[in-house]
Amino acid sequence: MNDTELIAALRDIFPAERISATTADREAHSRDESFHEAHLPDVVVWPETAAEISALLRWATAHRVPVTPWSGGSSLEGNPIPVRGGIVLAMYKWNRILELREEDLQVRVQPGIVYDELNRQLRSSGLFFPPAPGSSDVATIGGMVANSSSGMGAVKYGLTRDYVLKLQVVLPTGEILNLGSNAAKSASGYDLIRLMVGSEGTLGVITEITLRLRGLPERIMAAVAIFETVADAAQAVFEAIRYGLVPAAIELVDPEIVREINRWEKLDLTVAPTLFMEFHGNRAGVEEELAFAEEVCRDHNARSFVTAEAAEERERIWSARREAHKAVKYGNPDHRTTITDVVVPISKYPEMVDQAYAIAARHRIRVGTFGHAGDGNVHTEVLARKDDPDELHRADLVAEELVAYALQLGGTATGEHGIGIGKIKFMRQEHGEAVELMRRIKALFDPAGILNPGKIFPD
Amino acid sequence: MNDTELIAALRDIFPAERISATTADREAHSRDESFHEAHLPDVVVWPETAAEISALLRWATAHRVPVTPWSGGSSLEGNPIPVRGGIVLAMYKWNRILELREEDLQVRVQPGIVYDELNRQLRSSGLFFPPAPGSSDVATIGGMVANSSSGMGAVKYGLTRDYVLKLQVVLPTGEILNLGSNAAKSASGYDLIRLMVGSEGTLGVITEITLRLRGLPERIMAAVAIFETVADAAQAVFEAIRYGLVPAAIELVDPEIVREINRWEKLDLTVAPTLFMEFHGNRAGVEEELAFAEEVCRDHNARSFVTAEAAEERERIWSARREAHKAVKYGNPDHRTTITDVVVPISKYPEMVDQAYAIAARHRIRVGTFGHAGDGNVHTEVLARKDDPDELHRADLVAEELVAYALQLGGTATGEHGIGIGKIKFMRQEHGEAVELMRRIKALFDPAGILNPGKIFPD
Repeated sequence: MNDTELIAALRDIFPAERISATTADREAHSRDESFHEAHLPDVVVWPETAAEISALLRWATAHRVPVTPWSGGSSLEGNPIPVRGGIVLAMYKWNRILELREEDLQVRVQPGIVYDELNRQLRSSGLFFPPAPGSSDVATIGGMVANSSSGMGAVKYGLTRDYVLKLQVVLPTGEILNLGSNAAKSASGYDLIRLMVGSEGTLGVITEITLRLRGLPERIMAAVAIFETVADAAQAVFEAIRYGLVPAAIELVDPEIVREINRWEKLDLTVAPTLFMEFHGNRAGVEEELAFAEEVCRDHNARSFVTAEAAEERERIWSARREAHKAVKYGNPDHRTTITDVVVPISKYPEMVDQAYAIAARHRIRVGTFGHAGDGNVHTEVLARKDDPDELHRADLVAEELVAYALQLGGTATGEHGIGIGKIKFMRQEHGEAVELMRRIKALFDPAGILNPGKIFPD
Repeated sequence: MNDTELIAALRDIFPAERISATTADREAHSRDESFHEAHLPDVVVWPETAAEISALLRWATAHRVPVTPWSGGSSLEGNPIPVRGGIVLAMYKWNRILELREEDLQVRVQPGIVYDELNRQLRSSGLFFPPAPGSSDVATIGGMVANSSSGMGAVKYGLTRDYVLKLQVVLPTGEILNLGSNAAKSASGYDLIRLMVGSEGTLGVITEITLRLRGLPERIMAAVAIFETVADAAQAVFEAIRYGLVPAAIELVDPEIVREINRWEKLDLTVAPTLFMEFHGNRAGVEEELAFAEEVCRDHNARSFVTAEAAEERERIWSARREAHKAVKYGNPDHRTTITDVVVPISKYPEMVDQAYAIAARHRIRVGTFGHAGDGNVHTEVLARKDDPDELHRADLVAEELVAYALQLGGTATGEHGIGIGKIKFMRQEHGEAVELMRRIKALFDPAGILNPGKIFPD
C-alpha cells in the first residue's frame, strides 16, 4: 500500500485534521529518549475514541499495516519507535481525568495524562498515585501501564501494576474490552489486566485506566546522607531494607552523577556517594524511621545526614535527583548515553554497583550509577563519544556485560524501562522457554502481528 | 479408558505407593470446604517431582484424561473438586521450604506448605509472608497462588499476587517453565506469573514458588471496638480508610456471627457489631495509628475500644475472628452454609452490608456477615436447613442476589475464593466479552482441556 492509499483509508476513520504525514510530525514520532535509531512512521494519527481505534486496528489487521501506540515518548528502550513504519497512534492529547471517585480512592483517566499532572489535579482531594517514575514530568499513565513503569515510590508503595483496577483496551482485531472492576481486589477469572501491564503496546491499545490511589501521608520528611564510598552507601541501603525500614524512596547517586547534576543544574552538591531518602507516615512514625535511617547511615560511615521537611526544600532535593539522567544525557551532547535498568536481589546490590565500575574500567568506558537502591534497581549511565566507533562498541559491551552479570545474580534485565528494542537480546537468557509461550500469547491477541511489531521478541 | 488401564498407565510414571484408587482416598479428594456436590476422582496420585507431573500431563493430554490439582482442600467454591473424574494430583505432601534467602527477604517453597507452617518456620529469621487468609492453618501456598487468595493482611500488605517472584509450572502439554526472577521488580516480557496466579489450576500445575517476604514489624497492637449498629461500624471502616489509616487488619463481624463464635468456641464476647483491628509499625507510629483508629470509632458511637499488645492476648482475639466460618458451618450441622465473597468499592461497603440483611429478610433466610472491611470484602454466611428444599432454594437466591448487587455497585463476585464452580454463573456478567479471551488463553495453554475441567468457564 502506498502512502496515498494509506491516508485515504485513514480518512474513513479520522477527520483530516487528526491525520498527518508531514515530515515534522513523522520525525517527532520517530525516536524516544533512548539512543536507539530513529524510524519514521508513514503517518501519525491522534485518536479521540476507543471506537476510532477499534476501526483502525480492524482495518490494520485486515491490511497488515503496523500500528505503534505512542504516549509520552519518554521511554528509554525504544519501546514506541515505529521500527516497521506504518501508523503511529499518538495518545498524548487524550489526557483528561474522566472521573474522580474520591470516596473510593480511585480515579479514571484517559491514557495520555502525564503523571505529575495527574497528581497535581488530585492534590486537593488529599490523594495521590505513588509510583513516581524519574520522568514524572513527561511520562503518561498509559505509557506507565504499558511499560510496567515504576520509580522512586516502588520501595514503599509498589508498582504501577499494583494500582490498576480497570482497563479499557482495544485488541488488534478490534474488540473493545473492559477489564477489571472497582473492587480493591478480585480473584475472578484470569488476570488479563496484569497481562496487559508491561506488554508494551504489543497486545492491545489502552484507552482508559482506573487507578487505585493512596491518601497523602500526614507527614513527609526527606533526608540526604553523604558517604565515603559507594560500597558504604550500598551496604547501608541493604541493611536498612533488611532490618525493616520502609522508606518512601531511597536513591543512591554516585559521585560521577552528582558532578553531572551540579554541572547541568548549576548546583554545588557535595561530590560524593549520596543517598536521597524520603519517609512518609504519621508524625511520630516518620520521626522514628528517620532516626533509624540515620543510625544505619552513620554505622556505614556517613559523614553527613541532613533532613528537610518544608516542601520547597524537599522539592529542591528531589528535582536534583530526578534530573540525573537528563544531566548526563544533555550535559554530554557529544556522547551517546546508554542507561541500563537491571534489578538484582537486594543482597547483591553492593556487588552489582561494584561490578558496574569494574566492567567499565576493563573496557575503559566512563560510567555513573544511580537508581532505586531499595528495590535493587541499578541504573548505569554508559557514556561513549559519538564519533568514536571503537568506544561506542566498547560501551555496548559494558551495557551487555552489566545485564549478563545481573541475570547471573538472579536479577532481571529491566526493572521499569521494559524490553523495547534494547533488551530483546536478553529475552531468551532471562526467560528461557517461556519466551515461546509469550510469543504464542502475542499471536493469539494479534494474529496479523500489526501492533508495535519488532519489540520484545527475538526474531 | 477403564480404571485398570488408567492405573497401569500411571504406574509407568509413579511408584505404586503413590497411586491410590481406594474409596477412602477417592472420597477424601472429592469435596472441599464448600457445600458443592462431591465428585469422586478415579484415582489419586501424590507427585514428588516436576518431571513426574510433566510426564503425567503429557500422557493425560494425549489420552484426554482430566487432571485436577489438589492442595489444602480448604477452598470455598469447589475449586479442586474433580467434577469430570479422572486423576487428582495431591500436592499437600510436597511441603518443604527449599531455600530461605534471608538476606534477600525471599523464600523458595514447595507448593504444599501450609501458610501458618511457613510463617512458623520463618519466625526466627524475623521475616513473614503477610496475606493471612482466614484458613491460614490449612491453606497451602500453592493453593493460595492458584486461587489468588489473600485475607486479613491485604489491606496493608497487599495480595498473594504481589509477593510471587518466581514460579515453576508444568503446562498441560508437559513443558516445565521457570517464570520470573529473584529481582524485587521486573518489566521484562509478559507477566506470565500474574496470569498463573488466580488461574485455579486450569492453566498449569505450580511446582515451586519463590515469595518475597516482609520484615516482622517492630511493634504489633490489636484492638477490638464494639459498636451500636453494623452501619456505624461499617461507616467507621470507610472513614478510617478514606482518611489514610493503614491497619494491618480491620475486620467487621456482625452480632449473628459473634453469637456463633461464642457458641462454637465457648467464649463470651459481647454480642454486638465488632471491629477486630491490628496495627503494625514502629513503636511511635503504631501508637498514633491506634489513637486515630479509636477517635474514628468513638466518632461512630463505639461503646468500647480495647487494645491488646501481648502475643497471647492478640492470638486470643484473632483466633476468635479466624474461627468465624468454621463456627457457622460446624456449629450448624443441620444447615447448609454458603459463604459469599463479594468485594465492593469501599464507599459502598456500608450499603453492601445493609443489603445483605435486606435481601436475606426478603427471602426469610438467616445470614451473618463478616469480612475484610478495609478492602470492601464482605463475606455473608447464608444458612438453610438441609432438609428444606424451599429454604435451600431461597438461600441460593440470597447468595445470587448478593453477588448481582455487588456487581451493580462496580464490585466483583469474588475477592479471594475464586470462581471454582460456584461463581461460574457470574463470569459473563462480570467480565463480558473478556470471558471469550480468557477461554482462548485456556485453549492455548491446555489444548485438550484436561486441567481442572469444569471450572471458571460457563459452558
